[in-house]
Amino acid sequence: MRIETLSVFPELFEPYMSTSIMGRARAKGIFEFESYDLRDWTHDRHRTVDDAPFGGGAGMLMKVEPLHEAITDISKRGDVSPRVVFFTPCGEPFTQETAERLSQCERILFVCGRYEGMDERAYDLADERLSIGDYVLTGGELPALVVSDAIIRLLPGALGNDMGSVDESFSTADDGGLLEYEQYTRPADFMGKKVPEVLLSGDHAKVDAWRRANALERTCRWRPDLIEHARLTDVERARAAELIEQYHGANAKGADSDVA
Amino acid sequence: MRIETLSVFPELFEPYMSTSIMGRARAKGIFEFESYDLRDWTHDRHRTVDDAPFGGGAGMLMKVEPLHEAITDISKRGDVSPRVVFFTPCGEPFTQETAERLSQCERILFVCGRYEGMDERAYDLADERLSIGDYVLTGGELPALVVSDAIIRLLPGALGNDMGSVDESFSTADDGGLLEYEQYTRPADFMGKKVPEVLLSGDHAKVDAWRRANALERTCRWRPDLIEHARLTDVERARAAELIEQYHGANAKGADSDVA
Repeated sequence: MRIETLSVFPELFEPYMSTSIMGRARAKGIFEFESYDLRDWTHDRHRTVDDAPFGGGAGMLMKVEPLHEAITDISKRGDVSPRVVFFTPCGEPFTQETAERLSQCERILFVCGRYEGMDERAYDLADERLSIGDYVLTGGELPALVVSDAIIRLLPGALGNDMGSVDESFSTADDGGLLEYEQYTRPADFMGKKVPEVLLSGDHAKVDAWRRANALERTCRWRPDLIEHARLTDVERARAAELIEQYHGANAKGADSDVA
Repeated sequence: MRIETLSVFPELFEPYMSTSIMGRARAKGIFEFESYDLRDWTHDRHRTVDDAPFGGGAGMLMKVEPLHEAITDISKRGDVSPRVVFFTPCGEPFTQETAERLSQCERILFVCGRYEGMDERAYDLADERLSIGDYVLTGGELPALVVSDAIIRLLPGALGNDMGSVDESFSTADDGGLLEYEQYTRPADFMGKKVPEVLLSGDHAKVDAWRRANALERTCRWRPDLIEHARLTDVERARAAELIEQYHGANAKGADSDVA
């Protein structure tokens, strides 16, 4: 896997990509990383990448020409063309499923906007448009790091074990799309707050059953909208309906789904 | 506004908080930032912050004791207690509305997990639990930066003008919760791709009407789920219904809302 970024702040990526799990995975050769400076594809003395919007309005937009030239040029390097990913509020909401899909790519180029946005014509260069959430950020650099982190931790060997990435919230691989169960570590009693007995029992079957039931309960309580697409047994689905009624009242079928 | 982070990788924040809009806003005193190292609240030679989960399973959890001690200690510093924010998949999905609300806080402490998660008892220290999206990350550092960025850009003066933060996708302040309209800058013709005529007309009323209609159309096309809660006139709501039918077929009321 090779991850590249195109940005006017290329120096923002290196600290994260060199630290902790990212840093170790990169050192092991699990992924390569390179960040490009968009200004290297400008041709004026001021290295201009932005301009005022047609029709007026506050702020500046990223110009289409440097983006077009940079993406075309970068794409020609190396043996395989990158999957070109833009970030925009119009993009497909990024989910764990998208992370799993993108983790299969050989090469990805994240194009990071700044200022008030990009000239709309720049998006024609995108293979994919993503949004990491319904909030406004000053640039695409953090989204590129978020998506990179979510992808890289799925690569074989990146977490330093073969198990860690499977049994997680939202994972479709193992737990059927539920939130993860509650976890506890020592001490068994912290200021009077005790770890659930079953987790201390050493009975693996009981532990597994408790965890599954706990994951179901947490999901029904905090994210009932996830239940509809979760992989559940018939018994679990009936239990989920009870729990959702208990936490959200008689008419709740999911988060906001029936709000007029 | 004072923003603080508690993490085992305190060095990950400074580069972002010193660059571009964040760096300038901080230099102007619009916000203060400090990152704490959780290991400063450990008392063993190895500065241990993690331990194996009760009941078995892969990976390590963050222990409750150092978190409890650190948050209690940090909270006592300064004149005002911080709003303590944790990141967890069980958290309230972070949205622009949450960013607007948090931008009113005097002091916020972001507590950033790592490893497989935290001892569940640590969450009792949270004033608020957030999730930035339905995907799994290696830690809470990027979520803390994402939420900080979204908040800081809303602070008066942070963007260097008074307008930039209002007319944005998802903003409830001005555009009623629609995606932002398409924007264009020079050249008017890029490789045969032309800027819409009306934006070159100089007729501000026509430009405004085009932008509003364009924002409505984009939202209906890419994020029909936002329409239900958008502030629309009756005429716009009727038009939205037509557009959603056009883009998503006869039975679509919103993204996935009727999928069995």
